[in-house]
Order: sequence, then structure tokens, then C-alpha cells
Amino acid sequence: MIQKLISNIKKTGAPIVVGLDPMLGYIPEHVKKQAFDRYGETLEGAAEAVWQFNKEIVDATCDLIPAVKPQIAMYEQFGLEGIRVFQKTVDYCHEKGLVVIGDVKRGDIGSTSAAYAAAHLGKVQVGSAVCTPFGEDFATVNPYLGSDGINPFIDVCSKENKGIFILVKTSNPSSGEFQDRLIDGRPLYELVGEKVAEWGEQCMDGEYSNVGAVVGATYPEMGKALRKIMPKAYILVPGYGAQGGKGADLVHFFNEDGLGAIVNSSRGIIAAYRQESYAKYGPKHFGEASRAAVEDMVKDIRGALENR
Amino acid sequence: MIQKLISNIKKTGAPIVVGLDPMLGYIPEHVKKQAFDRYGETLEGAAEAVWQFNKEIVDATCDLIPAVKPQIAMYEQFGLEGIRVFQKTVDYCHEKGLVVIGDVKRGDIGSTSAAYAAAHLGKVQVGSAVCTPFGEDFATVNPYLGSDGINPFIDVCSKENKGIFILVKTSNPSSGEFQDRLIDGRPLYELVGEKVAEWGEQCMDGEYSNVGAVVGATYPEMGKALRKIMPKAYILVPGYGAQGGKGADLVHFFNEDGLGAIVNSSRGIIAAYRQESYAKYGPKHFGEASRAAVEDMVKDIRGALENR
Repeated sequence: MIQKLISNIKKTGAPIVVGLDPMLGYIPEHVKKQAFDRYGETLEGAAEAVWQFNKEIVDATCDLIPAVKPQIAMYEQFGLEGIRVFQKTVDYCHEKGLVVIGDVKRGDIGSTSAAYAAAHLGKVQVGSAVCTPFGEDFATVNPYLGSDGINPFIDVCSKENKGIFILVKTSNPSSGEFQDRLIDGRPLYELVGEKVAEWGEQCMDGEYSNVGAVVGATYPEMGKALRKIMPKAYILVPGYGAQGGKGADLVHFFNEDGLGAIVNSSRGIIAAYRQESYAKYGPKHFGEASRAAVEDMVKDIRGALENR
Repeated sequence: MIQKLISNIKKTGAPIVVGLDPMLGYIPEHVKKQAFDRYGETLEGAAEAVWQFNKEIVDATCDLIPAVKPQIAMYEQFGLEGIRVFQKTVDYCHEKGLVVIGDVKRGDIGSTSAAYAAAHLGKVQVGSAVCTPFGEDFATVNPYLGSDGINPFIDVCSKENKGIFILVKTSNPSSGEFQDRLIDGRPLYELVGEKVAEWGEQCMDGEYSNVGAVVGATYPEMGKALRKIMPKAYILVPGYGAQGGKGADLVHFFNEDGLGAIVNSSRGIIAAYRQESYAKYGPKHFGEASRAAVEDMVKDIRGALENR
């Protein structure tokens, strides 16, 4: 599956992913009004607003981008109706030819991890039938439980040609509380990075592995070190834009071949119309604002890569 | 909410929780057949089988137990239909007066963690309405992302009188890969335990905190050390029975007051009818087998506590 992602990146020239993390506060009033008029101020109404919002953003940007990353928490908060729209969003993005990275940060052990892997990347056997639950292409996974949590995902990735991104160094300010603690003189995140490289060997897809890593844009020096520790892992980089990362900070997350990293922006793209730079589009044309924000982000990152 | 759990534990005399982790392989053929006859060999059919299975187990055991712990992965694997049955199970267990621990092991940062907290323990604002998504009483949470991941859960716990159990030392064989690594001479899980104690201070409910910890039954010595590090945290103890833990191993997870821990069994209870000791009930009477297994588990743990 990493080859599919790479092919999409090459086609669009855009090593970026749009985070579909639709908080209600980001959704223009006219979209919410229409949804609430139809389904009431209910979980169903909220989910419908999310769906209409997502659809317009995907329609406005899908020819420019290789992938989307829906953050399932933003759907789960609307209960069953939210999950229904998560599913609908995954399916719609697939129709548009996009790679879908389910940002689910799941992690458990043994048969439970296998169930999560089946839910998001695999299939389940029901009697004599084989059914596909959510069917994303990649999922994000938490490493705290060790190999018992990761191996069931790798099994599914190998079988179904899917991929995972394992949390290594997250973008948030307090990520260092545990991740930066020194073990035999080296930070925990480096040990996790080494395991990612090791796990990834079992799951190669061309020159890169289907086992990637999450490393926050907010920690460029650590990204540089981790790039060397995990040369064959694709790095999913959150924290660009709203969280403070800039294109120039990100060059060392990429390999010399210009591949090896994909940079996420969520708020910076989907709520672009609320930023001063894109205010001219207004809430009515929020999709166009998102498109302009994608173009600017691609320019920023490509520029930085060309001048590295 | 920890007081509600303690009150249920005192009422039943049973410091245990039944893990509702219904793999299809555990469900008797006659239950599956009925569900598949009605809904086909589909995700809907699988979810219906899970629901009928859960309902019979809950009906057969609810007067003996204080709480249940549905493992959401086992529902998520059946997609939207599985999530529907997760919701139905939570609601049904609430009707029966049980405390519901959502074993969701979520963990993210900032607004995303807040969305997970709202999804499972809180409420969401939709226009002028306030809606409740899944509405469990407790959720399990992963600490790898640090305080940025935990604080949004604590905010919701404080506001809504709910609780969390943070993964500290998990029951699986490879949990030591990261959790046991030494930092300044002490294992990572102890540092996480210290943070649990610190986070818990912000969220007291009587003599215990609404912030608890997960510590595997399979590591009794570590449980003993962690009990001292987190004196006010309730410990949720997985790994009893099928994973190898026995009542006698568990006494040090409890405080002198006989409180402070709640022991989970999943397979050992819900698939009891498949064990030799309960085979006499047969698949037709799987609920009665589960009831007998609950009675034996309570006897084992109470016996161990009385003889400590």
C-alpha cells in the first residue's frame, strides 16, 4: 500500500495529506443550518453537517492531494451517527482515488489488536462470508503495549497489502513526558523508532515499508535523527501549520529521493476560510479556501525541498 | 463515579468485572444460526449474534457483579453494525444497574482527546442541544502522548463525574519492551504510575480517585510496587484466568481495606461453557455456565483476600 501512496504523491507532486478532523466549530453556519433543519440539533444533524462539510472539501481538493487522514475521534464524538459518516467519508474518498489514512491510534494486544486491525484494514469472517468493515488503507497505531500490539496489525498489512503508522514522537508539547525519557542514554522515542524499523522489515512494499511512523513537525531535530534510524519507514508528519511546523523545518523528514515523508495539515486546510489569508473566500466558499490553502502548503513544502 | 463502582462492589461482594469481548468463535452455534437466519452472514448478522450472546450473559450474571467491561475492538470489527451493538450493550447494562467500563484504550492530544472523552464519557453540544454519544461510565486510556492526552479526559471526568483507567503495566508478554525499560534506574511503568497518582489528585471522589490504572494480573510483583505508588488509584486488573493470573496472585493489588482493585475476566466468563469445568451446561445453557464461572471467580478472589 505504501507504493499506492507513493504513486499518488508522485502524480500530484504533493507530499501532503489533508486531515479531515471536522469539529463543529469549523463548519460554516449555512452548512450546519441546512443539516439541523433537516435532522434537528441531534447527533444525526451534527453528523450530516460533518458529511456535507467533508464532501465539499474533498470535492474541492481531491485532484491536488494524494491522501486524506480522517481523525476518527471527531466522528466518534457524534456516536453511531458520527461513525456512519466516518464510513461514508472513507468510501467517498476511495471513490475519488484518494488513499485513506484512518487516524485511529488504536492499540491493544493479541486477539483484540487483531480485531482492531480487521476493523480498519482487514476483513472479518462471518459464517461462510467475508465482510469488510471500515476498510481504510492505513491506520495509526500506538506502540505502548509492544510487539503483541503491533504484530496483529502487521499480519493484516501483509495479507491485505495495507499499512500502519506507529506513533514514535508525537507533535504535542507534553509528548516528552514519557517519549523523551532516557533509556541507556537514549530517548524512548528512538527505541520505538528502532522497533519500527525492525517491524517494518517484515512488511516491505518496494523500497519502503508498509510500516511507517508518526513524528511531529514540531520536533525537526528529532525527525532528522529518526529519519536515519528508520530509513525505510514513511514518516507521517502532523503538526504543520496550526501547530507551528513550517516547510523549512520539514526537509530532514524526507529522504534524498524526495520521498519518505507525508505532511499532514488539518485545521490549516479544512478551516482555511477562517484565516485572514483566505478570508476573501468567505464561509460560503470554504471549499475554495481549502483548495487555495492546499496549493500554498504544497508550494511551501516543495520549495523547501528544492532549496534543501 | 469511583464511589458508584465501590458501592456496587460492596453490594455484590465481588471485586470483579466481566469483560464483554464477544469473538464470534465464542458464540454458540445456535445463537449464530438464529442471527444469520434473520440477517444473513453479514456484519449485521454478526452484530446481532453478539447482541443476543451479550444479553444472555448479562441477564445470567448481573445480580452477581458490579460492572462490565465491553472491549470496543470486538464490536468495531463488525463496522457500523458492531458499534450499534456496542451502544446497545452499554445501554442495556446501565438498565441493569451495572457500571460500564468502556475498554477503548483511546489516546490522542488536545481537542482530539477531548473529542474521545466526549464520545465515551461526556456530552457534545449540537447547536443549542446537548447530546450524549456512547455514555460509558469509565474508559481506558493510553498514556504514551503524556498530559496533553490525559487532561482532556480528566476535565470531562471532573465535570460529568466519570472515570478513566490509564494503561500502566499491561498483562501481555511483550509489555516489557517499552514499559519495563529503566529510566534513571526505574522502569517506565513506575513513572507512568507516578503520573497517574499526580493526575488523580485533581479528580478525587471520596477516598479514591476517578483516575485509575490498568495493571496486568500476570505481573503481581509489579502490581505490589504500583499499589504503593498510586495508593488512591483503583487498579483495573486484566489477565485473570485465561491469561494465567490466579486469585492468590492478586492480593497485593488490593489495599488493606479490601478495596482498590477490580479484576477482569473476559474469556474465562463469557466462554465458560467451552471449558471442561463448565462443559456440563453445554452450549445451550452458556449463560448458566457464565454464572457458575462468576461464582467461582468471586470465591477464588475473596478467599485469597481473606487469607492474605
